[in-house]
Amino acid sequence: MSFLQKKTKKTFKKISSSLLIAPLQITKDTPEMGVNSNRVEDYSSHESTMIRISTELAASQPPFEIHSVCLPPKKTTLQKLKHRLSEIFFPDDPLHRFKNQRWCQKLVLALQFFFPIFHWGPDYNLKLFRSDIISGLTIASLAIPQGISYAKLANLPPIIGLYSSFVPPLIYSVLGSSRHLAVGPVSIASLVMGSMLGEAVSYSQDPTLYLQLAFTATFFAGLFQASLGLLRLGFIIDFLSKATLIGFMAGAAVIVSLQQLKGFLGIVHFTGKMQMIPVLSSVFNHKEEWSWQTVVMGFGFLVFLLITRHISMRKPKLFWVSAAAPLTSVILSTLFVFCIKSKAHGISVIGHLPKGLNPPSSNMLYFNGPFLMVALKTGIVTGILSLTEGIAVGRTFASLKNYQVDGNKEMMAIGLMNMAGSCTSCFVTTGSFSRSAVNYNAGAKSAVSNIVMASAVLVTLLFLMPLFHYTPNFILAAIIITAVIGLIDYQSALQLWKVDKLDFLACMCSFFGVLFISVPLGLAIAVGVSVFKILLHVTRPNTLVLGNIAGTPIYQSLNRYREASRVSSFLILAVEAPIYFANSTYLLERILRWIREEEEWIKANNGNTLKCIILDMTAVTAIDTSGIDMVRELRKILEKRSLQLVLANPVGSVVEKLHQSKVLESFGLNGLYLTVEEAVADISSTWKAQP
Amino acid sequence: MSFLQKKTKKTFKKISSSLLIAPLQITKDTPEMGVNSNRVEDYSSHESTMIRISTELAASQPPFEIHSVCLPPKKTTLQKLKHRLSEIFFPDDPLHRFKNQRWCQKLVLALQFFFPIFHWGPDYNLKLFRSDIISGLTIASLAIPQGISYAKLANLPPIIGLYSSFVPPLIYSVLGSSRHLAVGPVSIASLVMGSMLGEAVSYSQDPTLYLQLAFTATFFAGLFQASLGLLRLGFIIDFLSKATLIGFMAGAAVIVSLQQLKGFLGIVHFTGKMQMIPVLSSVFNHKEEWSWQTVVMGFGFLVFLLITRHISMRKPKLFWVSAAAPLTSVILSTLFVFCIKSKAHGISVIGHLPKGLNPPSSNMLYFNGPFLMVALKTGIVTGILSLTEGIAVGRTFASLKNYQVDGNKEMMAIGLMNMAGSCTSCFVTTGSFSRSAVNYNAGAKSAVSNIVMASAVLVTLLFLMPLFHYTPNFILAAIIITAVIGLIDYQSALQLWKVDKLDFLACMCSFFGVLFISVPLGLAIAVGVSVFKILLHVTRPNTLVLGNIAGTPIYQSLNRYREASRVSSFLILAVEAPIYFANSTYLLERILRWIREEEEWIKANNGNTLKCIILDMTAVTAIDTSGIDMVRELRKILEKRSLQLVLANPVGSVVEKLHQSKVLESFGLNGLYLTVEEAVADISSTWKAQP
Repeated sequence: MSFLQKKTKKTFKKISSSLLIAPLQITKDTPEMGVNSNRVEDYSSHESTMIRISTELAASQPPFEIHSVCLPPKKTTLQKLKHRLSEIFFPDDPLHRFKNQRWCQKLVLALQFFFPIFHWGPDYNLKLFRSDIISGLTIASLAIPQGISYAKLANLPPIIGLYSSFVPPLIYSVLGSSRHLAVGPVSIASLVMGSMLGEAVSYSQDPTLYLQLAFTATFFAGLFQASLGLLRLGFIIDFLSKATLIGFMAGAAVIVSLQQLKGFLGIVHFTGKMQMIPVLSSVFNHKEEWSWQTVVMGFGFLVFLLITRHISMRKPKLFWVSAAAPLTSVILSTLFVFCIKSKAHGISVIGHLPKGLNPPSSNMLYFNGPFLMVALKTGIVTGILSLTEGIAVGRTFASLKNYQVDGNKEMMAIGLMNMAGSCTSCFVTTGSFSRSAVNYNAGAKSAVSNIVMASAVLVTLLFLMPLFHYTPNFILAAIIITAVIGLIDYQSALQLWKVDKLDFLACMCSFFGVLFISVPLGLAIAVGVSVFKILLHVTRPNTLVLGNIAGTPIYQSLNRYREASRVSSFLILAVEAPIYFANSTYLLERILRWIREEEEWIKANNGNTLKCIILDMTAVTAIDTSGIDMVRELRKILEKRSLQLVLANPVGSVVEKLHQSKVLESFGLNGLYLTVEEAVADISSTWKAQP
Repeated sequence: MSFLQKKTKKTFKKISSSLLIAPLQITKDTPEMGVNSNRVEDYSSHESTMIRISTELAASQPPFEIHSVCLPPKKTTLQKLKHRLSEIFFPDDPLHRFKNQRWCQKLVLALQFFFPIFHWGPDYNLKLFRSDIISGLTIASLAIPQGISYAKLANLPPIIGLYSSFVPPLIYSVLGSSRHLAVGPVSIASLVMGSMLGEAVSYSQDPTLYLQLAFTATFFAGLFQASLGLLRLGFIIDFLSKATLIGFMAGAAVIVSLQQLKGFLGIVHFTGKMQMIPVLSSVFNHKEEWSWQTVVMGFGFLVFLLITRHISMRKPKLFWVSAAAPLTSVILSTLFVFCIKSKAHGISVIGHLPKGLNPPSSNMLYFNGPFLMVALKTGIVTGILSLTEGIAVGRTFASLKNYQVDGNKEMMAIGLMNMAGSCTSCFVTTGSFSRSAVNYNAGAKSAVSNIVMASAVLVTLLFLMPLFHYTPNFILAAIIITAVIGLIDYQSALQLWKVDKLDFLACMCSFFGVLFISVPLGLAIAVGVSVFKILLHVTRPNTLVLGNIAGTPIYQSLNRYREASRVSSFLILAVEAPIYFANSTYLLERILRWIREEEEWIKANNGNTLKCIILDMTAVTAIDTSGIDMVRELRKILEKRSLQLVLANPVGSVVEKLHQSKVLESFGLNGLYLTVEEAVADISSTWKAQP
């Protein structure tokens, strides 16, 4: 808008006020002020008047410009919708690479887009391969025992754990965009699958059905993850806030550890339940089953593992200590049990494991029958959980090495990997925190480390299975406990308490929910709390009284800035939230209360009578029809009490809606300003101008 | 904060920059800048330097002050909690009247607070009484036929409708704070009760049980309403946004009208269902049952009623035309049917109604048994609906006559009224739109008009019941249709479409939900949509690039204000939402994209290289731990790309949290500014100062 126009608008206003034209007579055109400027000419002749007035004002205050509030550029509903949708689904503008490229170039880019391996493959060299081999073998030594353990955690035969460490990593290495993710079964997803399926079917009673459900759940998990990625609904997992996850993981870790008491104390008749109380009671009701040899050796190895873990945490350079420990302890314990097998009957061992590669399992998928819903539910919950873990891990290491991972692409990769897994006797897999950390420290450079790991698992599956026959269950228990103990992050919880009480509440809800109610319900409660928090903020927004910082155009909260001071006969209120149906009633009441209190204050300190209320709308980032009604209502009420209502700096969408709903017209020219300062300056000047 | 301090802070900053002290060395104290000012003295000796520097800058730009960002005044967790709770539950500060009053005064006030009748009673006089009598009798003439009709709508015996127009109004007149609310049964609540109870029990098969459930539901509705008021959870009903209600009421009106086809066509075998399709199909499957006499007379009276309604809408002065019409048509039709009763067998009539007052029904409340949940659910849904209507009506007329109704008090009044009603053979009642409007137009001055109405009903109950024996059902149908037709507000729906598409969506969802699925489900869907809208706004907030309006301290959106222009080597972004777990990932991606696009733009127009990103935090009204991590993360990423990140004007709670979480320290002195302008000025000056 030209300087001229500014001036002339000012002129126009001065005149209208000096000629005492009631605003309402001229308001019909007001809203257009922003958009078209042809009305400007009508008044430009009054330029001279303007000068006169502003000079006559000059004595009292420096002359000033008034900037009119613009409407945002006009857009059709379709354009708006298009913009909105692109913001919702393509915030990262994934196609920007493709802009103005030749078609063959585009083809290559597309290939790289869908198969990241084509992106880094060409530049791959022997040097990178060397470090990938090292890291690959390291995580393999971790993945094999953990795979077996986590399978048992999901009540599945140990071999499934190894199968799951073979196919999925291979697929991920082709589709995945993270360089450090070490793919395989993870504790939490395994636990959840075990608990949710266990409630419906017990493995001991009907192993085939249980296996069917496990694979089906895995399939659904994959399908869910892939479709989230495909439909670009990735933000759904954002609703598992960090606070929630801290609580959830701690709770899960406790539950997992409790489950290990079975293998750890050598209890035979153990509860199928997951919650804290039944588990503990069943532990102490079967004291007679505790076998002291198991306990002693178990604790021995647990201490050993914890020490190695501690060392590696202290000196990241010594990552290999904790990385090698599990396999070492498996070998040692297996040898030991093998030697004393004649006399050690109390010690339960894994037993026979079949040699050979993943058998196909697509024929075992279970798509109709009474348990379909169970499989579906389990699939979705484990899907969300594994996705969250995978994405989080990917992002963490990406930000450490300063490269980007595309959330939605990751989801598709993990999803497809699980769908393929479900057809090759694998259960839910994703990128695991612990193994990825080891992978990173071991200097992994690309997804090739996953291929190396897979090959190591392949060799194991083909030739080394018999060696695990005498591996005792307590060692698996010890390995699991060492793995999950790191999930209990009490420091972060403490930090939450310090910084944000409501986040801490969400955290505690998920922790105790998981511990005492059930894993999915605990999660649901926590998500509910997080959402409730958002709603609460909207339902009861903050309102501030602003004051001017002397000698500046700055207006700030009175009770926060000691140098800010009231502007006499003005009440300047800032509303710190969008105005919605959920808070419009509250805001109306609150604002009226502010006015009441201000008037009481004025009476007490006999200051100038209140004449004008300025609403600073800067932070009102959106408004809906209820909000608009509220503004209209407020204006009516204040008019009855002969108080002027003025809006300062409303954001684009808000002005637009106020305009469309014809509320602006009722405000008239002196009802809308770009800044609080201009509002105060202009209005007080009009007061002066009037007799 | 003193002017001195401002200057000296500036000095301090100049020095630190000119002596090239890395910010991090001095940041440890930064956050305190706002709160304690003892550190100021340490640097005040440098005053002279300050002058030198600012004069040396004067050539390039006018000297300027930098205001440090304050922390909000320190508060303990308990104080914060107290403040927060009082904001949530006592936004209107209901006890402010009681402040500094003598105890006897307080007692009176308390009495007036709980029983508004003591508030207006003393000033009540004969003049007011006269107008109340007129209005009271007018609404009575409307209430009697409507009461009978709505009772039939809820599948209850007609007499219950009259009972419900007797006791509740009396109680409300003592407890209620609205002067124009006309209390009694209302169409929507009656419909919902009929439909929800009808699904469980049919009146025709087990009338006693059905009555029991109806009274119990009424009791629960009252209990729910009263406790909402008592716990000051009134904001829960705010979640039924206006948009939702428009759609819901229209849907309900259609359903109600369809239900009337039974009485209207004289169909005997009518479906018990409520949805559109089953009703229509049952209408056309029983063509043989249609009785032409009923149809003819029914339509005759319907046209008559609609015409009177139209007249009164055109000329509010003629309100009595539509007010008197129902009773008139009842009398006329009754007489007519009475005269031709010998030959008119096709016409169904109300039949015998017992004389006498409300029998006590507390013994019929049903607190254990298979149907308890049905009663509870019905109670809560009807409770919410009737509450919403009552409060809305109360507020509307209060704002017309410019007095306040206290939402929470109204809830308690309506709740207690329903609880009392449930013990005196009444079903759910509240303030009705139509009757209150008539009451208002008839010049009601106080709740006494309700007492007058109740007395009129009393007389009817005691002496006039036999007269209704031959009242035909089609007239009740006609009355109901005339009453509900006004609920279809297509203009508002159109306005919604014009102003806010998402609100329109919510409106449509509730409309079609009610029409085709079921009343409570339709409502639930609509509320879901409204809440989803809030979440969507938070999950995908707006981000704007700001530019400076030449010659002013104003920074505004570049694509909205043509006169705003980029500040070279700065990128100024405004985030228009609180930063939460739900949007932190999105915002990070989006901001990085803005930076990428800016750099591309610069490359294209070979402008100055981008050096500094300013985040205008004015509209970031809250932040949680995930948000804090996002800021930290963003800073890290930008640092790696040697870009400076600066925050401008963060609100109190945000600064506080950033401070508590030690993020501010990493920003250092030059990382936090009160306004964008000061940030730009100061940073560019430091660039100049540096070699």
